[in-house]
Amino acid sequence: MWIQKSLQLQPRSRGFHLITRELTGQLPELAQIDVGLAHFFIRHSSASLTINENADPDVRTDMESHFKHFVPENQGYYLHTLEGADDMPAHIKASLLGSSLSVPIKMGRLALGTWQGIWLGEHRNHGGSREVIVTLHGESPASDV
Amino acid sequence: MWIQKSLQLQPRSRGFHLITRELTGQLPELAQIDVGLAHFFIRHSSASLTINENADPDVRTDMESHFKHFVPENQGYYLHTLEGADDMPAHIKASLLGSSLSVPIKMGRLALGTWQGIWLGEHRNHGGSREVIVTLHGESPASDV
Amino acid sequence: MWIQKSLQLQPRSRGFHLITRELTGQLPELAQIDVGLAHFFIRHSSASLTINENADPDVRTDMESHFKHFVPENQGYYLHTLEGADDMPAHIKASLLGSSLSVPIKMGRLALGTWQGIWLGEHRNHGGSREVIVTLHGESPASDV
Repeated sequence: MWIQKSLQLQPRSRGFHLITRELTGQLPELAQIDVGLAHFFIRHSSASLTINENADPDVRTDMESHFKHFVPENQGYYLHTLEGADDMPAHIKASLLGSSLSVPIKMGRLALGTWQGIWLGEHRNHGGSREVIVTLHGESPASDV
Repeated sequence: MWIQKSLQLQPRSRGFHLITRELTGQLPELAQIDVGLAHFFIRHSSASLTINENADPDVRTDMESHFKHFVPENQGYYLHTLEGADDMPAHIKASLLGSSLSVPIKMGRLALGTWQGIWLGEHRNHGGSREVIVTLHGESPASDV
Repeated sequence: MWIQKSLQLQPRSRGFHLITRELTGQLPELAQIDVGLAHFFIRHSSASLTINENADPDVRTDMESHFKHFVPENQGYYLHTLEGADDMPAHIKASLLGSSLSVPIKMGRLALGTWQGIWLGEHRNHGGSREVIVTLHGESPASDV
């Protein structure tokens, strides 16, 4: 069974955001899959998807502080500056963190660990709504009948 | 053909560890797959999986030195400090390196390059045993008969 | 439907290179897949695959400058130095950026965003030709008949 759909995320401010529920709330099809994989792909080169801690919001704040420090704006060697001081750092962060995730599906649910959630990394100051293509693939319990 | 199983890794010290054999030794099912993909997913937000050099242990030592230097403990801007000085850096490393890997399966084996191995990144001082969900998917030679 | 093939990339200079067309030009099989996933896996531990901006070449130049700065050569703590000053940094970059990519397939094409392309990260000074294993998997329109 293959299911593919495009989800439009709510616009977010720059930084890291827990979006597990926003995603799974739009994926009732997960319940049809007994064993499989869910693939999430963000169609932008200045935002990212990553898996991290789902509890303390300070972890997301500290992640943004780290990346602000270690992927600085206005580096003297940047050539690509016309789209704003936040743009080139956003591209670097996108590659460091990645544009896609694959998560196992087990008995109709994402098999995330207890403390794991899916994060959006919004790396532009005004990134707007981001598109995620979700591809679910697996076998349904019915296929055993 | 879908196969999904949970593996419990041996506890490791902080740093990077070559775990290819520990994983494949528990995956005799690989031999049943002619063409496919193996997905490895670590269910923690302070450890990671990555692919790198499988020969010289110094490469793993140097990787840890790099991350110790560029993802420092005790940064003044960290807010999430209650779980220990190693915790917030561990979350950052987990996102930089990633929580999952997909490796092609070819004729019953992982199609890793000659010098590639699967590494566990243990980013906590005392992380304990880590759980990895393995999802194998592919077609068996028998399906051609 | 499973398709797996090995592609040998043209040798490239150190830095980041847009290789979307070099890859898709060798994958006419994509046209047979209506919904699916394309997996690209580089069989080396000193080069990487990442998705980023496909338009302004300055973005690729700046990416190389960033990594040159933040994954420096000749760090005093490097032990693995016998293979050249560019070798250990190449291993670090390979893990930071990743050795594989999964991209959704939609109606016979990679469903990349308008501004996204597939980049090779060549992290050695003289890396030579690199091998990529491509695994395509999905359902064909014919399977609906």
